[in-house]
Amino acid sequence: MGGTAAHEGIPMKRSMLSLLVVLGVSSTSTAAVGQELGVVRLNPPDTARGHPFMTAVAIRASATAWSDRNLSLQDLSDLLWAANGLNRPDENKTTASSAMNAHDVDIYVFRQEGVFVYDYRNHELDPVRSGDFRSAILMRRPPRPGATPEDPSRIEAPIQIVLVSDASRFRSGTDELKYEWGAIDTGIMSQNISLFCAATGLKTRPRASVDKDKIKAILELNETQHVFLNHPVGYAR
Amino acid sequence: MGGTAAHEGIPMKRSMLSLLVVLGVSSTSTAAVGQELGVVRLNPPDTARGHPFMTAVAIRASATAWSDRNLSLQDLSDLLWAANGLNRPDENKTTASSAMNAHDVDIYVFRQEGVFVYDYRNHELDPVRSGDFRSAILMRRPPRPGATPEDPSRIEAPIQIVLVSDASRFRSGTDELKYEWGAIDTGIMSQNISLFCAATGLKTRPRASVDKDKIKAILELNETQHVFLNHPVGYAR
Repeated sequence: MGGTAAHEGIPMKRSMLSLLVVLGVSSTSTAAVGQELGVVRLNPPDTARGHPFMTAVAIRASATAWSDRNLSLQDLSDLLWAANGLNRPDENKTTASSAMNAHDVDIYVFRQEGVFVYDYRNHELDPVRSGDFRSAILMRRPPRPGATPEDPSRIEAPIQIVLVSDASRFRSGTDELKYEWGAIDTGIMSQNISLFCAATGLKTRPRASVDKDKIKAILELNETQHVFLNHPVGYAR
Repeated sequence: MGGTAAHEGIPMKRSMLSLLVVLGVSSTSTAAVGQELGVVRLNPPDTARGHPFMTAVAIRASATAWSDRNLSLQDLSDLLWAANGLNRPDENKTTASSAMNAHDVDIYVFRQEGVFVYDYRNHELDPVRSGDFRSAILMRRPPRPGATPEDPSRIEAPIQIVLVSDASRFRSGTDELKYEWGAIDTGIMSQNISLFCAATGLKTRPRASVDKDKIKAILELNETQHVFLNHPVGYAR
């Protein structure tokens, strides 16, 4: 089964649109629905890039603020290849290991023009749906008394990555074990992202507190697909 | 609560010894019980070391065979610091992030002379118990018909790392969420280990199929401590 085939170019459904309105997804976001999103061909990775490994771990830290400047194509390409690039094509093996080599974790990339999923086999971003949902997926806490409420349309970072494990790709194991392996595999991929950013001057943080229900609705995930982590990624502010 | 204090120098209990005999831990292992294990002071990390980050991910692969040569003190020191070293002492933050900064994952190191736990605050290995359990914790599958049975005393690699998340360190959350965060945090730390090895010429693999019941008995873990992953680490054979 193709790892990402099921997510390519999923059309917007009417029922979905209603649900998003209920969930409070802004009209600015849904207005973009129907625009054509194309495949984003990524550049070959620069495999000589980055600080020495020990320097990267020494400076790794979770960021809290990002510039609104868009990622360059090379940075986006290297980021995704570091996260889960095919580094041994003959064996279908990648920079992130996965339990039973199941390739259970998909990388969704939320950009201004829409949502994409990383196809590691072809090193490209395949369109999932158009619309800017980068702000919609964030958790919004009620403001403290007297504090200014957070602007729900504020864009935190130029891209939001969401890591989703599909338990159906494990050939065996109980549901509990598949959930556990999916969470571990997500952590493995997450650290590739965190260390790539540390090694190249980008900023990110792994975050479990993201609006998972809204993400499931936006991406039309099924019961076996579990949203585990979010990574805002961008340049320093 | 100290992250590792509970594990320091736990004495062998009689009931434990009986249990290990039942579990089939070899007499060679238990014979070492009672010997004094000291703290292993680690060298400061070499933070300029290793291939460029992108080269490390490009060559990362899971190993299947190891030399029996012991790790040098500098390699052991750098490995553990890369895995979860204190890279921002003023904030009690480390190279591996953890949900709610709970520092829930402990690194147990199984060596020939005994088992230790990594104290990231003091960058040292604290003794847990003496005895060689490196072989005892591995899963043993029944041999295929006609095949030579695996020698249960065979030492796979000079050290066996075991990652254990203690759910009690999370200040809030349901038991299910704590389990999920523990698995994710374990994956994050696991990739630090895998990439350190790729960056410096060492060999490892993350492995979920390890004898968790035996590990729990050997380490006298309690109900909130979950064994998630094992990493054999050593040089190429």
